[in-house]
Amino acid sequence: MKACIFDGRSVRLDPSHAEPAAAPGEVRVRVLLAGVCRTDLEIVKGYMGFTGVLGHEFVGVALEGRHAGRRVVGEINCVCGKCDLCAAGLPTHCRRRTVLGILGRDGAFAEQLILPEANLHAVPDSVPDRQAVFAELLAAAIQVGRQVEMRPGSKVIVLGDGRLGQLVAQVLAASGLVPRVVGKAKAKLAILEAMGIDAVHADAVRPAKDADVVVECTGTAAGLGMALAFVRPRGTVVLKSTVADTAGLNLAPIVIDEISVVGSRCGPMADAVAMLARGQIQTEPLVSAEYPLDRAPEAIEAAARPDSIKVLIRP
Amino acid sequence: MKACIFDGRSVRLDPSHAEPAAAPGEVRVRVLLAGVCRTDLEIVKGYMGFTGVLGHEFVGVALEGRHAGRRVVGEINCVCGKCDLCAAGLPTHCRRRTVLGILGRDGAFAEQLILPEANLHAVPDSVPDRQAVFAELLAAAIQVGRQVEMRPGSKVIVLGDGRLGQLVAQVLAASGLVPRVVGKAKAKLAILEAMGIDAVHADAVRPAKDADVVVECTGTAAGLGMALAFVRPRGTVVLKSTVADTAGLNLAPIVIDEISVVGSRCGPMADAVAMLARGQIQTEPLVSAEYPLDRAPEAIEAAARPDSIKVLIRP
Repeated sequence: MKACIFDGRSVRLDPSHAEPAAAPGEVRVRVLLAGVCRTDLEIVKGYMGFTGVLGHEFVGVALEGRHAGRRVVGEINCVCGKCDLCAAGLPTHCRRRTVLGILGRDGAFAEQLILPEANLHAVPDSVPDRQAVFAELLAAAIQVGRQVEMRPGSKVIVLGDGRLGQLVAQVLAASGLVPRVVGKAKAKLAILEAMGIDAVHADAVRPAKDADVVVECTGTAAGLGMALAFVRPRGTVVLKSTVADTAGLNLAPIVIDEISVVGSRCGPMADAVAMLARGQIQTEPLVSAEYPLDRAPEAIEAAARPDSIKVLIRP
Repeated sequence: MKACIFDGRSVRLDPSHAEPAAAPGEVRVRVLLAGVCRTDLEIVKGYMGFTGVLGHEFVGVALEGRHAGRRVVGEINCVCGKCDLCAAGLPTHCRRRTVLGILGRDGAFAEQLILPEANLHAVPDSVPDRQAVFAELLAAAIQVGRQVEMRPGSKVIVLGDGRLGQLVAQVLAASGLVPRVVGKAKAKLAILEAMGIDAVHADAVRPAKDADVVVECTGTAAGLGMALAFVRPRGTVVLKSTVADTAGLNLAPIVIDEISVVGSRCGPMADAVAMLARGQIQTEPLVSAEYPLDRAPEAIEAAARPDSIKVLIRP
C-alpha cells in the first residue's frame, strides 16, 4: 500500500509499503482522510525518535470487528491495561503504550492503519469526513475544561490562533465562557471574529497579569513565558505546547506569582465526536488545503507554513 | 544604627545607617535574631534589583503598638488592601506590595526594622529565638500542604536537603505523611534520618516517574527537570525554587505526562508559630552558625557554602 514514512532523516512516500497485519484485539482501518498535526512537524525534526508511517489524526472505515464497514475515528494511545497507570484509570499514560504515528506504531498517512478495536469510535452519518478528521485535535481542546475549573465570568485567554487555539476557543465559547484569543496572524484572528469570538493581535494587547486562566496553544517555547505574563497570581496556565527548548525562558514568575502550570495532552474522543454531531464546532474555516496521499510530503511542508491552519491528506 | 546593606554591587556593614521611621499603621521592631535565606543569596547576585538593608527572616521585640515589649515575628509582604488581588483575598500578591528586605523596603539584618502592625505575630514565651527565627521559612514549608492535596499513602518526594527541604519534610511527616527526601549532602541527610525521615542520596535513587507529589526545594534550575523525572503522569510538582535560568531544561514532560507544576512562595505564619509552640518542628539541628551583626557580610558568604543549612545573624 501507499504510505508516507519518516526514516529518521527525511519524509517520503513509500508506494509499496507492506500492508499492516492486525494482532488479536486489533482491527484494520481504511483511511479516508488524515490531518497533519504540529506533533508530526516535530517528529520530522527528530522529536520522539519516531520512524515509520506518520500521522495520527484520521477518519476511516473499519474493515473488520464490530464497527466493520462503518466510519470511525480512533484514540491514538494503545495501552496494556495492566500497568500501574492503566490500573489507576490513566490509560492514556500507560507505561507500555504505543501511540499511532508517534511511538512504536505506524500511523495514518497511509491507505490502511491498525488500532485496537477498543480505541475506535463510530462517526454518525451527519458528520462529514472533513469534520470527523478533527476529532483527535478537538478532544485535546475539550480536555482543557476537564483539567481546570472555569466559571462564568472567568477571564480566560487563549494564546495562539493556530489549529489548536482555534478549537480551544470554540470549545470554551460553546461552554458559555467568553475567551479572548491572542494571536499573530490576521487571517486566523479574522476566522475567530467571524464566529463572534474576541480575537486580538499580540502587538495590540499588553499583558497585565490579570487572567484567571491562560491556555497556551502557541506551539512555541516562548509561549509559556508569554502565558506567565498574562496570568494573574494564583492563576492557571494550561500548557499545550511540548516545549523541549527552554533557552531564555524565565520561570521565576511561577513561584513568585504562585502559578499552576497544568500540562495537557489528549482528551475525550467520544465527547469530540458528540460535539461535532451536535454542530457545535466549525471546522471548515480551519481547512487550509487537502492533498492526495501521493503528495503527503508536500502536505507536511505546507502545514509548517505560518499561514496554514489544518492541512489534510486524502489516501 | 548598624545595618547590613546591599548597594547593588556589594554587601557591607553600615555602622551608622539612619534609624527607620514608622509610617501610620507601622511599628518599629528591635531585631533579636535574623536568618539568611536563599533569596538573600540571590539578591546579592542582583536578583529583584533590590538595594537597601537585606534580610527578611527575623524574630524581634515590638517597640510600639499593641505588641509593644513582646517578641514578634512578621509577615514580610506589606500590602495596600485595596487592589484587585487584595480584594480577591490574595494579599501576599498585592500589586503594590513592598516586601521586607526584598522589594522596596529595608530588611532585618539591622538593629531595627519597620513593618505594618498587622503583619506581626506574637511569639509565645515557650518558643526560643533560635526557633522563632524559622517562622517565615516554616510558613513557606506549611504552604505546600495548603496548595496540594496529599492523602495518607500518597507517595511524596522532597527534592533538596537544604533548609527548606528539611522543614518541608518535617511538616509533611508531622501531618502523617511519609515523605522521602532526595538530597546530595550526607550530613544533611543524616539530620533527617535521625528524625526518622526517609532520606536518600540522589546518586542512590533512580527516578521512576511514580511519585504522586514532588516538592522541589533544590534551589537550582535543574531541580524542576529532576522533579519531572520523579513525578508520575498526572502528578504534581510543587515548585519552590525561583528559577530564572532555564537553559537546558526540557519541559516537554509537563505536557506529555500532563503534570501540574504549582509555584509556591510564602505561607501562613500564624500556623508556623503554632507548630513551633507545639514542639512539632526541630530547628536546632538546622542551625549551622550564628554571627554577630558586625560580621553579617561574612554570614551571608557562609550561608552560600554547600555544607551550611541555616546561618543566623544576631544584632
